[in-house]
Amino acid sequence: MNIGSYSYEEYLHLVKSFHGNLAPGLIIGGFMVDLALKELPEGELFDAMCETPVCLPDAVQILTPCTIGNGWLKIVNFGRFALALYEKNEGQGIRVYMDSARLEPWPEIKSWFFKLKSKKDQDLQILLDQIKEAGHDILSLQEVHLHPQFLKKRSMGQTAICTQCGEAYPAKDGSLCLACQGETPYKAVIRLTKESNNRTGSQDIRKISFS
Amino acid sequence: MNIGSYSYEEYLHLVKSFHGNLAPGLIIGGFMVDLALKELPEGELFDAMCETPVCLPDAVQILTPCTIGNGWLKIVNFGRFALALYEKNEGQGIRVYMDSARLEPWPEIKSWFFKLKSKKDQDLQILLDQIKEAGHDILSLQEVHLHPQFLKKRSMGQTAICTQCGEAYPAKDGSLCLACQGETPYKAVIRLTKESNNRTGSQDIRKISFS
Repeated sequence: MNIGSYSYEEYLHLVKSFHGNLAPGLIIGGFMVDLALKELPEGELFDAMCETPVCLPDAVQILTPCTIGNGWLKIVNFGRFALALYEKNEGQGIRVYMDSARLEPWPEIKSWFFKLKSKKDQDLQILLDQIKEAGHDILSLQEVHLHPQFLKKRSMGQTAICTQCGEAYPAKDGSLCLACQGETPYKAVIRLTKESNNRTGSQDIRKISFS
Repeated sequence: MNIGSYSYEEYLHLVKSFHGNLAPGLIIGGFMVDLALKELPEGELFDAMCETPVCLPDAVQILTPCTIGNGWLKIVNFGRFALALYEKNEGQGIRVYMDSARLEPWPEIKSWFFKLKSKKDQDLQILLDQIKEAGHDILSLQEVHLHPQFLKKRSMGQTAICTQCGEAYPAKDGSLCLACQGETPYKAVIRLTKESNNRTGSQDIRKISFS
């Protein structure tokens, strides 16, 4: 049994190493990516879309060239346990999803997926055994075609310097960067490095020595 | 010269293998993560936030335990070339950003960062040489403290079955899943697998044999 170009055991090793633990969703995600890859035309230059940020993006990043940072993996957060691999220019591809109608023979997977048991009442080993045994059998496939707006290459466009924070940002965002427009996740910011010339209102605390 | 726990050359190898190419932004991102890691208290259990989806998330995923799929890496898209590593419960941490005021000694980095040259006029080798030589010198640091709402664990809450697509989705999204509420990225969907019981309006095209 293979997952992508890896043996099942090699894939589990990669999951532990990249994701930190043997998350059941990521093992199922491995079977999902594997199934989608088998359905794509050979040599297809594909991008990927995950319909949840949970687990599935890591299966894509482990098994395909698509990552968040290179832009070939996108996430739309519908909370559906599904992913699609599709030709990157035209958008035709394969969507794989967890098919809840196929879960009846796999009670431990079903109770995990629908959170029917508390985590402490769940038997992880039985769950992992059922996931391995079920393989592709709990998944279904669709042919999909993406809307053109989802195929656009990301582009920052022109860059401007924010007059508040002094950092570069996409000029199209307005006269300040989005963080300084109020979307900042930080309630406190203290500069640690030597003041540069284009800052105002910040404070030197200490000088970091760069080695 | 090290990047995280890797030698510079090992890091470049990981960049090529994970990201697909020696993206300048990802090499700078390596120095950014490295600098943040050096500033964190030893043994800190940290999460990561990137302020752009471009390149930086891959530096975090290569160099730290934080990934998109395990939820320890978040992205807020401000288009600022910055990232933060912060204590996952309380939110205090270190933010590193590309400091445009420090770019004067590095004309090739400056012209790449501000897109002052077309890609074909850019000398990639000089750019990569300057990035390696500059190291941490083009970066600045801040102590930050995240707003509590950015520290919340993600939770799907209760699961429901969408009466339109038949898939599981977070019940809090409403009476249909977000995709069926109109946010779908797909303009066409054709079922490829055997019809299951809880679907309506879809069509069997062919039966995939699961091996």
